[in-house]
Amino acid sequence: MQDQLFTKIETLFPEMVEIRRFMHQHPELSFQEKDTARYIAEFYEKLGVEVRTNVGGNGVVAKIYGAKPGKTVALRADFDGLPIQDEKDVPYKSLVPGVMHACGHDGHTATLLVLAKVLHEAKDNLHGTYVMIHQHAEEYAPGGAISMIEDGCLEGVDVIFGTHLWATEPTGTVQYRIGPIMAAADRFEIAIQGKGGHGAQPHKTKDAIVAGAQLISSLQQIVSRRVDPVDSAVVSVGSFVAENAFNVIADKAKLIGTVRTFNESTRDFIAAEIEKIVEGTCLATDCTYQYLYEKGYPAVVNHAAETEFLIECASKVMDVTKIEESPLQMGGEDFAYYLQHVKGTFFFTGAKPKTAESYPHHHPRFDIDEKAMIIAAKTLCSAALNYQTKEQHTRQETLA
Amino acid sequence: MQDQLFTKIETLFPEMVEIRRFMHQHPELSFQEKDTARYIAEFYEKLGVEVRTNVGGNGVVAKIYGAKPGKTVALRADFDGLPIQDEKDVPYKSLVPGVMHACGHDGHTATLLVLAKVLHEAKDNLHGTYVMIHQHAEEYAPGGAISMIEDGCLEGVDVIFGTHLWATEPTGTVQYRIGPIMAAADRFEIAIQGKGGHGAQPHKTKDAIVAGAQLISSLQQIVSRRVDPVDSAVVSVGSFVAENAFNVIADKAKLIGTVRTFNESTRDFIAAEIEKIVEGTCLATDCTYQYLYEKGYPAVVNHAAETEFLIECASKVMDVTKIEESPLQMGGEDFAYYLQHVKGTFFFTGAKPKTAESYPHHHPRFDIDEKAMIIAAKTLCSAALNYQTKEQHTRQETLA
Amino acid sequence: MQDQLFTKIETLFPEMVEIRRFMHQHPELSFQEKDTARYIAEFYEKLGVEVRTNVGGNGVVAKIYGAKPGKTVALRADFDGLPIQDEKDVPYKSLVPGVMHACGHDGHTATLLVLAKVLHEAKDNLHGTYVMIHQHAEEYAPGGAISMIEDGCLEGVDVIFGTHLWATEPTGTVQYRIGPIMAAADRFEIAIQGKGGHGAQPHKTKDAIVAGAQLISSLQQIVSRRVDPVDSAVVSVGSFVAENAFNVIADKAKLIGTVRTFNESTRDFIAAEIEKIVEGTCLATDCTYQYLYEKGYPAVVNHAAETEFLIECASKVMDVTKIEESPLQMGGEDFAYYLQHVKGTFFFTGAKPKTAESYPHHHPRFDIDEKAMIIAAKTLCSAALNYQTKEQHTRQETLA
Amino acid sequence: MQDQLFTKIETLFPEMVEIRRFMHQHPELSFQEKDTARYIAEFYEKLGVEVRTNVGGNGVVAKIYGAKPGKTVALRADFDGLPIQDEKDVPYKSLVPGVMHACGHDGHTATLLVLAKVLHEAKDNLHGTYVMIHQHAEEYAPGGAISMIEDGCLEGVDVIFGTHLWATEPTGTVQYRIGPIMAAADRFEIAIQGKGGHGAQPHKTKDAIVAGAQLISSLQQIVSRRVDPVDSAVVSVGSFVAENAFNVIADKAKLIGTVRTFNESTRDFIAAEIEKIVEGTCLATDCTYQYLYEKGYPAVVNHAAETEFLIECASKVMDVTKIEESPLQMGGEDFAYYLQHVKGTFFFTGAKPKTAESYPHHHPRFDIDEKAMIIAAKTLCSAALNYQTKEQHTRQETLA
Repeated sequence: MQDQLFTKIETLFPEMVEIRRFMHQHPELSFQEKDTARYIAEFYEKLGVEVRTNVGGNGVVAKIYGAKPGKTVALRADFDGLPIQDEKDVPYKSLVPGVMHACGHDGHTATLLVLAKVLHEAKDNLHGTYVMIHQHAEEYAPGGAISMIEDGCLEGVDVIFGTHLWATEPTGTVQYRIGPIMAAADRFEIAIQGKGGHGAQPHKTKDAIVAGAQLISSLQQIVSRRVDPVDSAVVSVGSFVAENAFNVIADKAKLIGTVRTFNESTRDFIAAEIEKIVEGTCLATDCTYQYLYEKGYPAVVNHAAETEFLIECASKVMDVTKIEESPLQMGGEDFAYYLQHVKGTFFFTGAKPKTAESYPHHHPRFDIDEKAMIIAAKTLCSAALNYQTKEQHTRQETLA
Repeated sequence: MQDQLFTKIETLFPEMVEIRRFMHQHPELSFQEKDTARYIAEFYEKLGVEVRTNVGGNGVVAKIYGAKPGKTVALRADFDGLPIQDEKDVPYKSLVPGVMHACGHDGHTATLLVLAKVLHEAKDNLHGTYVMIHQHAEEYAPGGAISMIEDGCLEGVDVIFGTHLWATEPTGTVQYRIGPIMAAADRFEIAIQGKGGHGAQPHKTKDAIVAGAQLISSLQQIVSRRVDPVDSAVVSVGSFVAENAFNVIADKAKLIGTVRTFNESTRDFIAAEIEKIVEGTCLATDCTYQYLYEKGYPAVVNHAAETEFLIECASKVMDVTKIEESPLQMGGEDFAYYLQHVKGTFFFTGAKPKTAESYPHHHPRFDIDEKAMIIAAKTLCSAALNYQTKEQHTRQETLA
Repeated sequence: MQDQLFTKIETLFPEMVEIRRFMHQHPELSFQEKDTARYIAEFYEKLGVEVRTNVGGNGVVAKIYGAKPGKTVALRADFDGLPIQDEKDVPYKSLVPGVMHACGHDGHTATLLVLAKVLHEAKDNLHGTYVMIHQHAEEYAPGGAISMIEDGCLEGVDVIFGTHLWATEPTGTVQYRIGPIMAAADRFEIAIQGKGGHGAQPHKTKDAIVAGAQLISSLQQIVSRRVDPVDSAVVSVGSFVAENAFNVIADKAKLIGTVRTFNESTRDFIAAEIEKIVEGTCLATDCTYQYLYEKGYPAVVNHAAETEFLIECASKVMDVTKIEESPLQMGGEDFAYYLQHVKGTFFFTGAKPKTAESYPHHHPRFDIDEKAMIIAAKTLCSAALNYQTKEQHTRQETLA
Repeated sequence: MQDQLFTKIETLFPEMVEIRRFMHQHPELSFQEKDTARYIAEFYEKLGVEVRTNVGGNGVVAKIYGAKPGKTVALRADFDGLPIQDEKDVPYKSLVPGVMHACGHDGHTATLLVLAKVLHEAKDNLHGTYVMIHQHAEEYAPGGAISMIEDGCLEGVDVIFGTHLWATEPTGTVQYRIGPIMAAADRFEIAIQGKGGHGAQPHKTKDAIVAGAQLISSLQQIVSRRVDPVDSAVVSVGSFVAENAFNVIADKAKLIGTVRTFNESTRDFIAAEIEKIVEGTCLATDCTYQYLYEKGYPAVVNHAAETEFLIECASKVMDVTKIEESPLQMGGEDFAYYLQHVKGTFFFTGAKPKTAESYPHHHPRFDIDEKAMIIAAKTLCSAALNYQTKEQHTRQETLA
């Protein structure tokens, strides 16, 4: 069964490329993906697949019903582009100035559409139901996932799988990770209010620069002293601005930064510790402050059994030449929200171009090895099919 | 075959306990374990097993030759005690004032001796060779492993396994970890030399306390900014001493601390970064310094294939009810050195007493659940036997 | 003799006011005071006093020769305005948008012109020579004093006196100070160059904000630890700019600040200490730097004997109701340069308006009590006349 | 009159030396000066001068009544020694092991006794009353002055004068200073309580060393930012102790230091600012603290008119070859308390030995030029006598 579907996927590779390139030429920014959403919906309509549009915004959800009873498996692909000018010299270069598929979401979508077509054609022999979640707005907080979930895209779903084409790893590699795999990425602002004055009369002022400087030094303690060393976290202040004439003492300083964490308790802990240090520093320096902590996406936390299962499924895909644990990735992904609602796993599918030069995600010359879409489609296909018959016991579970 | 040996181990549990308790009553400090070494040697001599004493010090190495060809598998147990006064109220309490088996090495030794007896009795049906490494001086750097290796204890060895009875996890649990599992534990000293003087005349001095304080703050940056956030490291200054009268400015300050890392490059990097920060701080404060970095044991880094293999072996032991990934342990172990020479893995065998209260390792009331010795013996036995027929392919290896 | 001149000064007060208000309505910025210089020169030409224009720029120097032999006494008044919008509601408000005499230089000039007229009329009875130094460009470094000196304004001068109308002290007060009275005011820039990167990957960067913050903290040690506590100095960083997105690590930070000192060796010492701390901090943080230290005016350092003499002269002016030691003033004055070439003293003449509200120097509503010009003129007159017969012995000199 | 007394003082120089050397050989520690007090009292008793002993402890007060009406002038000399071993090689070396007159109090006493003798002999021609305050325990807080005042030594006193023989200035020099001349010298202790733990597990601790280090850095801001730069102050932490094993995290740190100030409001301000910084730092680091601030002697603050008067008096002493303003002295003196109750001034009388080497106060080889006692006696004599006829108007007072 699976072998037949794999063959079909290979056969449809040209269509996959065609779809991906069309989308690559017509990228749309997050929350503005009207045309892309319509393109996807029409694809399903032409197939005769049940499709729902405007799910939580521009989201599109299609459902394929196998003839036989089984579980409901969701597969997710995102489809928004980025505000980056495409600088590649290829025929399928973006036609939209300043907008580009610089993260591979075009490939994700092509992969899922063709896989849907293959599943749809085989539906009479399939167990269970297959929910194709085409998500808008992954690149820009608050993201599309959260509103699609609120709009019911996970209703009845037993498990979800998603992948990211990963241009820094060679085609053939699949990277998994149990537990946290991608970080929660938050933003904070600290405004320190001191009291300005003449540079020659510090005693009449409350020097906001000196307070801010002490704060920066003290913030280092969060990661160095307060977070478990076997946990991972980052607290970075990216911006420190207190711009004045040379002979002035700063009345205020503005600090802006980011926090990256992999578990929710560490995340909340750090948000609170920052404020504690700000409060203490301001007490010591007689300044006041405003503190704003904006949560971005939470960490993507893969479920253990589903990840183990995915590893097994991937190992059955002949094109997969290497399966390895992914390092923790400090970037964020709103796939995180799905995993807060249902079991599942998110993995990376190596897609490094075989060209002499290759570029990281979000680079103006970013591209993927399109062959990787076959591997992504097969791995997702394998997971979806095998999940119907899965009796999973992982070593993380009690053995006896 | 394995089942028979497992039954034998169970049968010999009383002897195991007897040995463990005898040793518990007669602990010896690291590098002074003459009597314990003789006790071990005599055990083998009585069995008629080939035994070599004074290996790299007080080390004892016994070899059991299976009748059939095969691989050479080393198993290691350490046997030194600690300078801690036993405060337990049990019949087998330490008879040596101020010395105690507070880390379970008595259990390690009893486990290995009884397992050796079982293997020896079955040797006509066994493939391969079994090297029993009884190591002295694990608790005190530079440790016994390094000298035993230099004295040839690993000659001809194909693989090594070792376990630590782990009193914080319940009996039945086995904890493994691929790659680093226990930290490198190093020590550093920084002596800052400023210029003392009267507390009222700072301008005539170079304040070593102010320099040291700035240094402490800057050292936080190593972990917070310079080490990869998905790596784990600790830099702690445990001691800061500059003791003077209140109206004096300190001429010198002495800082002593520890560094914990899990990979060698991070370790060397941190040792160098500390000095860079010391050098820069002293330049900024016009002080001079002396810097001493003493490496303790390196990190224990388990080999992937051997760890996967161990997991499989453990899963065949009925008494093992839970196999899980160990968190990184910040403590050190000179088992690290064996793994730098041959393949192998080090794992934890849950041994938490079933009593109302239990105590952590190195506590004056530390004890183990002796039943755990059965599980340790069986798991090591399984690893040793199955390794003879192993054809291991892990997912970390290339699949096709 | 002196009494007659004092009476004459009182009589000419209306002219003094007229001159001052004309200048107040027609302020000119530093180095652009063409009209003011011409106005001053014409005043002397009308009197028939020898006058030299374009001295070191827009400077004007007039000389009055007493009929009798004596010493050469220089008196100095500055005449430039400031780039401040006059916000007072008075008939003599500035007619030039954005330019204003907000520091009282108009009053200085009116005082000196009228005093010159009085001296000129009495010249047949006077000993010595009187050099009226009308200096341009006091408000803006490098100032006019230095070029006027180079152009010979101090040739043959035995002593110099100068005063500043001081709007924060009541009319009737004269403030003197032996030794330093006004600070050297310098400017520095520090550009820290680190290595930017993603906020989630600090280990790939050299965080310029963290380096800059540590630097700010360490710079506090200069005043707190390295400068003699009975000396006075200020090191202020007024501007700290490293502006970036929240999820970035800063590649560079720019710090700008000021240093205030009262003696030249402390000044040079601090300039060097800042660099030492910058260098050490950059060494510790792996950054590089550029450091620029721009000297402004040096400290105004009054000569002891001439200051004691001035105190005596002031005590003979009936309108002077209080003579007191001035606190150290952190502002700068290029009168400092004259005192590096000849003996003399600079003092403050109280000129606080008797209105309900009064404003500090450089304030858009700044004004003076014009009556103070009489006191300034008399005190300078007294100093100039009495210096001819002075036999000064101060307690600072050896007594026996 | 004065000339006659001066001649008498010169004549009695041998007795002055004799007294001084006897005391130098028989020094007594602060609060233990029984014999010295008796020696002084007997001196007066032999003369027939009214003397009161045990004034506020070991203090001795003698009164000489001039036959004519006048003011009451107090003169003060202290008489305690120091816990220092005399290392000089002179015939009058201390006979008491470990105790020494290393600060010149023996000279102060000899000076005052001989001056008293001279005044007593001339009493029939003198106006006013002369109170000779021989104070015990100047070297050790809380000092003798405060209890002697409480015991009435200043009752009826109009003015007080005191001097310190000053071994760092040449004989012939008199140093005065209006306002603060010697610092308030206080002591503080800060105990930071964190939470200790293993060096490898910072997240389970509250690192008292890191908190203390941050505190030290922040304390620098008090002098660098918060005290008026034209005021003088010192905050020094002389002792920082957190002694532990290398692999431990400190549970507590103890800091001890000193504060020096010249005016009471700065003193109280700094005491409060330290606590503010401690409180803020502990808030930021989750530690708790204990803070103890112990006031030592307050600053010696000379009265302006009396100081001006003293300058005039000193200028009439032929042996005085130089009268100059003293730099601020960071050391403390409990003469401060007298000046809080009555007008007066404290000055330095140069007493640098003419030997090749000379040593600072409190040095084991400290000595004075005994000739300086003549100058001290004459200057005090001049002040005491002339005060009877003084009509002082200083320039600090309103002139008209």
